Order: sequence, then structure tokens, then C-alpha cells
Amino acid sequence: TECNLLVLPGDGIGPEIIAQTLRVVSWFGEFLDVQIKTEHALVGGASIDACGYPMSDEVFSKAEAADAILFGAVGGPKWDDRPRSERPEMGILRLRKGLDLYANLRPAICFPELIGASALRPELVRGLDIMIVRESTAGVYFGEPRGISTDAQGARRAVDTQSYAEAEIARVCRLAFELARNRESRVCSVDKANVMETGALWRSVATEVGREYPDVELTHMYADNCAMQLLRGPNQFDVIVTDNLFGDILSDEAAALTGSLGLLPSATISAGRHDQRSHAVYEPIHGSAPDIAGMGIANPIATILSFAMCLRISMNEPAAAKLLEDAVRLALFNGNRTPDIAGPERDGISSDAMTDAILASLDAL
Amino acid sequence: TECNLLVLPGDGIGPEIIAQTLRVVSWFGEFLDVQIKTEHALVGGASIDACGYPMSDEVFSKAEAADAILFGAVGGPKWDDRPRSERPEMGILRLRKGLDLYANLRPAICFPELIGASALRPELVRGLDIMIVRESTAGVYFGEPRGISTDAQGARRAVDTQSYAEAEIARVCRLAFELARNRESRVCSVDKANVMETGALWRSVATEVGREYPDVELTHMYADNCAMQLLRGPNQFDVIVTDNLFGDILSDEAAALTGSLGLLPSATISAGRHDQRSHAVYEPIHGSAPDIAGMGIANPIATILSFAMCLRISMNEPAAAKLLEDAVRLALFNGNRTPDIAGPERDGISSDAMTDAILASLDAL
Ligand SMILES: CC(C)[C@H](C(=O)O)[C@@H](O)C(=O)O
Ligand SMILES: CC(C)[C@H](C(=O)O)[C@@H](O)C(=O)O
Repeated sequence: TECNLLVLPGDGIGPEIIAQTLRVVSWFGEFLDVQIKTEHALVGGASIDACGYPMSDEVFSKAEAADAILFGAVGGPKWDDRPRSERPEMGILRLRKGLDLYANLRPAICFPELIGASALRPELVRGLDIMIVRESTAGVYFGEPRGISTDAQGARRAVDTQSYAEAEIARVCRLAFELARNRESRVCSVDKANVMETGALWRSVATEVGREYPDVELTHMYADNCAMQLLRGPNQFDVIVTDNLFGDILSDEAAALTGSLGLLPSATISAGRHDQRSHAVYEPIHGSAPDIAGMGIANPIATILSFAMCLRISMNEPAAAKLLEDAVRLALFNGNRTPDIAGPERDGISSDAMTDAILASLDAL
Repeated sequence: TECNLLVLPGDGIGPEIIAQTLRVVSWFGEFLDVQIKTEHALVGGASIDACGYPMSDEVFSKAEAADAILFGAVGGPKWDDRPRSERPEMGILRLRKGLDLYANLRPAICFPELIGASALRPELVRGLDIMIVRESTAGVYFGEPRGISTDAQGARRAVDTQSYAEAEIARVCRLAFELARNRESRVCSVDKANVMETGALWRSVATEVGREYPDVELTHMYADNCAMQLLRGPNQFDVIVTDNLFGDILSDEAAALTGSLGLLPSATISAGRHDQRSHAVYEPIHGSAPDIAGMGIANPIATILSFAMCLRISMNEPAAAKLLEDAVRLALFNGNRTPDIAGPERDGISSDAMTDAILASLDAL
């Protein structure tokens, strides 16, 4: 078989971490039955600078035709003053909406090698393994009407709309239940049903979908309480499913508490696993980090592990995915650390040296 | 002078922690120039059971007439299946909206005596003192249109509206800047300006108001990044100002990271400090804890410290507020612990015994 991989490096450290990850992609290209063909295109600020738009129609068409998309990161101070609809971030939002990538999977895993880097006390994060499933095509990100208007007196008012159809809630909940079946069979659905109409509908639909999965435990939690419980007892969670906005905030909180921020991957997909025809974007959860761009010290692991998710989900190569994850762990176990995870006493190695270590681990395993 | 204090105990542990706090109120009644007159009324589930509404018009009129309101907590499983508009939570939301209580002040302080109870490593939370100023009369909590509708095929759709007028943003930002002047003179304004129209307006208005306070440093942060930064370096924050929904989530996260959850007070106010004519609600940030209601073991400190905020803000008695805060610290320093903060090795004392200890500290100081 063949896999057409569209590579969108983006801005800041995006091109650097993508370049490192492509070294890993090549390694697998030699060993897998899957033929991986890569094509590069511009997105985000880089695309704005070239053609005026964060994602051109031409690039979007390529994304539609691709089997999977490897995404770096977008954004930076250079484009911060532009109106919302013309900002680098619209590049990724257009992909999510346009390709109907409704489920953003964000694992929050604590790597044992980095346990000392967590803000939390070690006993709380040891073994931490949460999967956050964030709805990513609807909610306040895309609801209409929206805008800023000025009244006769010149006073401004801004409006956003959070809108959810029951089908939009049901499909992402269903995916969360499916994932839970391969994990600890527990889903926690998070909303503000006590305050929001979309929250009340979310809770009803999650409950209804839950009846299709009697083998999976379903609990409900308010978003504010979830922000608290992630700190008080993160190990109580297995799969969390929630809306676009709560998912944005809670998944970043969960990532931060693992202490493994520069290591965490994500996948944004349009259907269940093992469906090679569906669309999917793989990207690190960290951002474009303009402050260290060009220095050659960005941690490539989150992007490399995003490619591992691509191997598992889009290419249906679970053994290869596992091999890559093990290679990353071995490289960490052997003491390889980029500056972001080196701690105060050590200098840290370059992006290049980190990838070398991972490739060496791949050869060794 | 005189202070008419409306006391709304509510549900769950609400009546117990309020009863303890009233012992402290009486203590101050004997020493202050202010005459504190208390009146009790029903709110939340207790009010639903009595009259069918979470807050009757009669109680709302009393709230309008009062100088300050001492609030326990509302909600419980008994009322969880009711439609949103008839739930206990509407009791507090009606007060916030009806009395135009636009600023919800939520200090996140780490009590040195409880540093071991924080989920975070001690070096990260030591000395932590953040003031979160949450807008509390607008945003998605009150925006119209809202509701759940069903289309011709029987499919449901839910809609919420987040709406902000520039005046609503400006007044809460101004309050945050005023508070910062008495602290470390730093305000961090939190939004999703990269995705939401209300976020873009929030950022513009915060910047404009900031120009009136050249002596206060203003920074901006996205809400997802803030959820992360609260974990990575909580001490970077002095005052955080944000909208109703982000404030709900981020203030709970901040509270949880201090480890002092059962100790944290809040004030929701309608104007700057030292204005005795304005309205204000004082309440613990924790909830009604139905699981321990009636057992006599609820921690009264968060409510007692909410009364300290009342002394400072509504009664203009900063010395008395300071005295009460010192008395609480002394009681903690002397080892008094209710079960929630006792740790695994100890049993913990009753609510009554904790209040005894605080009253004894007041006598001693
Ligand atoms: C870049 C931004 C639009 C995006 C979001 O808010 O979804 C980011 O924070 C993320 O979580 O992927
Ligand atoms: C009880 C509920 C309506 C309320 C809110 O969401 O504002 C609570 O969580 C709070 O923070 O005071």
C-alpha cells in the first residue's frame, strides 16, 4: 500500500521539528510495506507571507487528497495584530473544519524518565495516562452569528455563538467510548450542564450514547470541577470527552501536569481507528515557540510521537508505532535531553542529536 | 454605623459552615463600631423545597436592601434532574445578575501550614498569592439567544451566546488594575483572542483601560496557555482578570493547586472597595459537599475568611479583617485541622472545634 503524507511545517520551530521527524519517517519508509510519499506545503504565517492567506485553496485541496497530514506549528508575534480571520491559527482551524476532523485526541502521559519535571508531586503523576478526546469541528470556534459591532453611541459589543447539534456530540462521544474499550473502560464526559444549554444537551447525548456501551463506565463532571480534579487526583481519569473550548483548556492543563509538555503528540481525526480512507492531522500539542526558533534546540519528540500516532491510526501499523514509542523511551532512558527537559543542572543536546539518539534506538531495538 | 447582613445558608454543608461563621460574626459584633444586624433567608435547593424557586422575589428584595450577603453553598443530587432554570445554582446566578455584581474576586493563596497538602511540589507553591478577578454578570452565563430546539427530523440542537459589551469588560478590568496597585502592580488579562470575537474585544479593551494605569504592568495570555502556566510557574501571576467562563475554570484550577481548597473565600462585588453602599456576596469557593452534610465536620474556614473579606470590603474595617485572617492562621499554626486538611495520618476535629480554636485565637491576639 501507499500513504500520501502532506507535510505542513508552519512557523517558528515548526520547520525544525518537522525536518527531524522526516528523518524518522525515512527510517520507517525503508522497513514498512507502506510506501510513504511526502509532499510539502505552506501553512500559517509562512503561507500569509507567501500568498496572503493562512491556508490557500490549493493547499487545502492537497490536504483533502492526502491520506494523512503532518503538521508543525503556526503563529508568532509577526502576525499577532492581524484580524482573527487572517491569522496563522486559521490554517489549522480550516483543516479541522474543512476535513471534518471532529475528534482531537490528546494523550496526557507522564514519561517515567521525566517524572521530576512535573509540577506535581511524583506520587500523583506516576503512571499517569489520560486520553482527552476534544470535539474539534463545532462549538464556539465555529458558531454563527459572531462578530464585533458598534452601536449609535460608538460602543462596541462582541458576540460568539456556541452551537452543538446532537449528531456532533454523539459521534465524538462514540469515539471516546470506542477508545475506552481498549483502555480502562472509563469515560468521563465534561460540560457545564448547570449553566449552558449546550452543556445540558451534551450531558443527555453522552448518556444516550453511553447506553450503547454498557461495558464502559460513564461519569459526568462540570468543567470547573474537572480543572480541579486533574490536580487533586489525575489518576482517576481514563478517557475524558468534552467540547472544543473546554477541551482546549483542559488538555493543556493535563499536558502541563505530566511535566512532559515537549513530548506530547496529538491526532485530529475524522473517523474511528484503522480507517485508511479517513482524514487525519498529526501535530505536537506544543506551539511554534518563536523565542527558540532557528536555534536548533527544539525538542522533536512531540512531533515524532505524532508520527507514531499516524503509523497506528492512518497507516494501520500498530507494531511500527509501538517500536517508535519504545525507541523514544530508550533515547530518554539513555539520558538524552533537549534543553526544555534537561533541568537546571544540564545544558541539553540539539534537536539533531536527539533525533540521532532516537534513530540509534530504532536500529538497536 | 450599621451593616445589614443577609445570611443565605443554602444546601448541604451550607447551613453548618454559616452557623460556625455567625459565631465569629457575633465576636466582632461586640468589638466593632459597626452594628451588624443579621437576617436569614432561603436559597437554592432549600428554597425550591419551600416555595418552588431557587430564589424567591421576596428574598431577592431582601438582598437588594442588604448591605452585604453571606452565602453558604447551593446544590445537591436531590435537584440535579431539574431543568437548568429551576436548579439551585440559579439562586446564586440571580444574585450576581440582579445585583449587578460584576466582579468575582477569588484569591488563590497557599497557606504555609498546608503546603504539604498541595498537589504541586512545595517550591512551586510556597508564598503563592494570586488574585483572580472573574467577570460575573455577562458572557455565556447570561447571553441570549440560548436554548435547545428540535428540527423537523427530531434532531436536537443547543445554542448558547457569549456576549460582551465594552463597558462590561472595561469596568472589571479597571477593578483588576485598582486591586493590582495594592499588590504587585501586575495584571494578566486572559482570553481566546485568537479564536473568539469576545476575546478580541476583551484584549482591546483591557489594553485601553491599561493605558489609564501606566504604573501597572499589563500582559495578555490565551486561556489554554494560562491553564498551563498556572501549573508551570504559578508565582508569575499577581492579578488575573478574565471572563465569566474562563474565570470559573481557571479559578478552580488555581484554588486546587494551592492545596487550600477548604480555606479559600470569595467576594462578588458591584463596585470598587470601600464603598459601603454597593452590593456584595461573600461565599466560600467550595461547594455544598452533600456527602459530608450533617456530619459536623465541614471546614468553616473558607466561609469565615469570606466574612473577613466582608469586613474589609463592605464594612471598611481592614484592621478587623486582618485580625480575623491572623486568627485563622494562628489556629492552623496550632495544629487545628478538620478532616479535609488533616492528611492521612490524623482524624481531624469537628467544625465546632475549629471555630472554637479561631475564637480562642481572636481572644489571644
Ligand atoms: C492555535 C489555536 C487556534 C488552537 C486552538 O485553540 O484550538 C490551539 O490552542 C490548539 O489547542 O490546537
Ligand atoms: C454553581 C455554579 C453556577 C457556579 C458557576 O459556574 O459560576 C460555581 O461553579 C461558581 O464558580 O461559583
